[in-house]
Order: sequence, then C-alpha cells, then structure tokens
Amino acid sequence: MRKDLNGTELLDIASRLADAAGQAILPYFRGDALSTSNKLEGGFDPVTVADRAAERAMRDVLDELRPDDGILGEEYGTKAGTSGLTWVLDPIDGTRGFISGTPTWGTLIAVSDDKGPMMGVIDQPYIGERFIGGFGTARVDGPHGSRDLGTKTTTALRDAILFTTFPEVGSQEERSGFETVAEQVKLTRFGMDCYAYGLLAAGQVDLVIEAGLQPYDIQAPIAVIEAAGGIVTDWQGGPAHNGGRCLAAANTTLHAEALKFLSRV
Amino acid sequence: MRKDLNGTELLDIASRLADAAGQAILPYFRGDALSTSNKLEGGFDPVTVADRAAERAMRDVLDELRPDDGILGEEYGTKAGTSGLTWVLDPIDGTRGFISGTPTWGTLIAVSDDKGPMMGVIDQPYIGERFIGGFGTARVDGPHGSRDLGTKTTTALRDAILFTTFPEVGSQEERSGFETVAEQVKLTRFGMDCYAYGLLAAGQVDLVIEAGLQPYDIQAPIAVIEAAGGIVTDWQGGPAHNGGRCLAAANTTLHAEALKFLSRV
Repeated sequence: MRKDLNGTELLDIASRLADAAGQAILPYFRGDALSTSNKLEGGFDPVTVADRAAERAMRDVLDELRPDDGILGEEYGTKAGTSGLTWVLDPIDGTRGFISGTPTWGTLIAVSDDKGPMMGVIDQPYIGERFIGGFGTARVDGPHGSRDLGTKTTTALRDAILFTTFPEVGSQEERSGFETVAEQVKLTRFGMDCYAYGLLAAGQVDLVIEAGLQPYDIQAPIAVIEAAGGIVTDWQGGPAHNGGRCLAAANTTLHAEALKFLSRV
Repeated sequence: MRKDLNGTELLDIASRLADAAGQAILPYFRGDALSTSNKLEGGFDPVTVADRAAERAMRDVLDELRPDDGILGEEYGTKAGTSGLTWVLDPIDGTRGFISGTPTWGTLIAVSDDKGPMMGVIDQPYIGERFIGGFGTARVDGPHGSRDLGTKTTTALRDAILFTTFPEVGSQEERSGFETVAEQVKLTRFGMDCYAYGLLAAGQVDLVIEAGLQPYDIQAPIAVIEAAGGIVTDWQGGPAHNGGRCLAAANTTLHAEALKFLSRV
C-alpha cells in the first residue's frame, strides 16, 4: 500500500458510493418502478435509468469528497484527475440478470492507480451483501454478518468449481478455450454475473473465466479477489485490469493449471 | 379449494416447516460448518448433512401437527397417510448451487392430494425470501417486504425471458428441444435452480423449461406459479406433478407457443 494514501478514508468513501448506488437502483429492481416507467423520458428502460441514476449519485459523492481524483464510469465516461487515483465505476454489472430479477448483479467500485486496482467493492444491495477488498481489508458483510474473505486451497482442476456468466463466454475461439477448462473441472455453473467473483473471494468457488470485459467490469473483482488471496490475469498470465479476457483463480497453483489451456487460445 | 381443508392452517404449517428447514440448513451454507465438518460421522458432505437435518426437522413438525397426512421427501422417502393429503418436501433443491455458495437453492414444500399440488412454498433462507402460493394466497415475502405474486403478460416467444439450470437440460434430445425454444426467445439465462420458478411467479421471467425432475422438485413450483396466474405442464401439455419434463409459462398463450416446439420431442 502506498504510504501517501489513507486507505481507511478510501474504503469509507467506497462504502458511501455503494450505499448511494443501491439507493438509486433498488426502486427500479423487479419492476418496482413499472407503474411509472411509461412516464420516463426518451423511452429508457428501467435498467438504463437505474444505471445512470446510480453512477450520477456516485459521481456526486466523489465530486464533493474526492474532487482531485479521476473517474472512469460505464455510463458517463472518463473524468480526468490530478491525484493519480481513479475511481472505476460500474453501477449495474449484469444488466441481463437485473432485468430477469436475479439477485446476482452488482455495483462495482474500484480505486486504481496506473498499476491497476488497489481496492474494490462488489455490492449486491437486494441481498444486502457487500464484498470489500484492499488496503488491508478482505471482508464480506451480508445476511450472515461480517466475515473474512479467503480463497480456497484447491490445486487440481478435477476438484475445482468453475463459473462464467454465459455458455458462449465470448467469441467461438474463446468459448472453445473455456470449454477445454470446463471439461477438466468438477462442476461448471453459469449465470452469476459479478457475484461469481465475490463467491471466489469468499472461498466458495475456485475459478471464474470470462471474456469481452471492460475495465470497469473487472477492476473491483481483481482487488477483492487479490485481497482474499486469489489471482486474476488475462488468458496469457498478464494484467487483466484493462478488460478483455479474464482468468480468476483461488490460488497460483490452480491458476497455472487453468492457464495451460487458456494460453493456447 | 376443497371445502374440507383449512387453508390458513396449512399455509401456517408450511411456513413453520420452511422456518425449521432454514434453521437446519443455514449453519452448513457457505462452509460455516467447515470447521466441524471433519467431525461429521460417515464422511457425509455438508450439503447432505444439511439436507437430512432439514427434512428431519420438517418431518418432526408434521408428526406433531399433521400426523394423519402422508409425506413424500427427497431424503427419507414416503410415509403413508390417511387424510388424503401429502406433504411433498425437498429440503435443498439445487445442491450444486448450494455447494457453490450461490443463494439460488431453495427449500420446496407442497401440499398435494391425488390431483396434484394445491399449495407450495419456495423458500430461500439466505436471502430471506419466501414465495408462497395456494389456498387464495400468492405472495413473496423478502428484502423488499411482502408483495403480491403475478405472472407476466408476454405472449410472444421473441419477447420472452427463458430460464433453465444447466445448458445440458437433460438428454441430448431434451437439450435439442430446449434449444429450439431458446433460439426464439429474447434472452436465455442459466443457473438459478428453483429460484427461477419464484422469479416466474413474481413476474420477472416468462418461461422455465427443465427435464429429469422428481415430483418433489416441481410440486411446490407448480402451486406457486399457478397461484400467480401461470401454468406448468409437461412437454406434451399434460400434468407435470409427477416429475420428468416441465414447461412453466407466465400465461396460457405463451405456454402454447413454447409447447409447439417442445411437444415434438
């Protein structure tokens, strides 16, 4: 951790951002705003309205409390900063899960410098569950109370549980790469959106493999998983924080096993 | 509703069963019992222990309060009754989701007579969400409070959201049948276990298609969905409560559209 940073302050602000996003989003989840949706301007669907309202709410907090930091958000793009820190925001990761009513979408918040994310939050406000990692913290707050995060010790693919969101994963080539790993593992499951990264950090699953990601899709998961003892790279073993293909693993041994297959893609 | 039945009492008992099951299961969810799991007799895994403890707890309640009713449970089989009513119990539906830490498994409870289920509960105790249908009730109690259930009015497959748990669905023939419907719909999602039936009843998704079901997998979802205005049959349009292949739809029009494809299997 950089000595010029106040990690406690940044963690606190991240929680405030997550609170603000959840308050903006939940009125639109599960059709709660359906009765008013036909009054919305411009024909926006509820998830788009919620997405924008949440990012606006988070940017308002940052404008007040961290005016010198940069912002990279899914909905409103880039705001340059002068501090060397950037807040990376995805108000609703998993919009297709959101419109289906599944409680596995999340608000993603990261703080990054030029080397990548240092701290991240994966927040699921319907369940009331928040995965937090970075600056010495690795914790999930949820229905079971507050628990330490920590990844699994599984080292063989044959013992591993693998997650991705869609069976297609990405391109046909990427799908084939994923399937070479899926054929080796104990169990493959789909459909969890960013929640799968939280489960990996919480020691419930072993691998998450995705492709076609944006930086704001993966920076918070990277920080949470690394804080919990896991590792996240692209499919060549390089940094994943710029998006694209991602391999998240519970530990370096298991990561190396999966990389043997993915690096051929 | 049969006039000899006290629906209020049966609904109340179903809630007591769900409470008892949740209390038995949650200590084993997400590895909370990991520290004691090596002390468990016979090498049972936590999900098996939780499954059995929950069914035992539910049977204890029924032995006390409904001694004349029959029981059909996943773990402890059939107990004959004399009342003409049978409690159909699946303590943990979605064990693969359970061992992955996903909050989409559920406890399924139905009350049936010889014509099929009259009332059902889909309970997700980690989230604290309970879908209840039958005897004039169609309600979900959860983090958003208590809401009426009601299915969607979608009538065209091209506008529909379709769920199933695994891309394989069942046999190769069943997978192909599923895929002919999946090719028509707006969005196909995976991985939600019995929670998908709750989402259908709550008006969030339009179709759930599965195969290879046991009676205790589907009787509670049938009751909940029918109470919410939906329809559940097998792939020929016949009763689904004996298990096997299932098509759950938000309404009869959409059901007929999907059945055109599935009935060819």
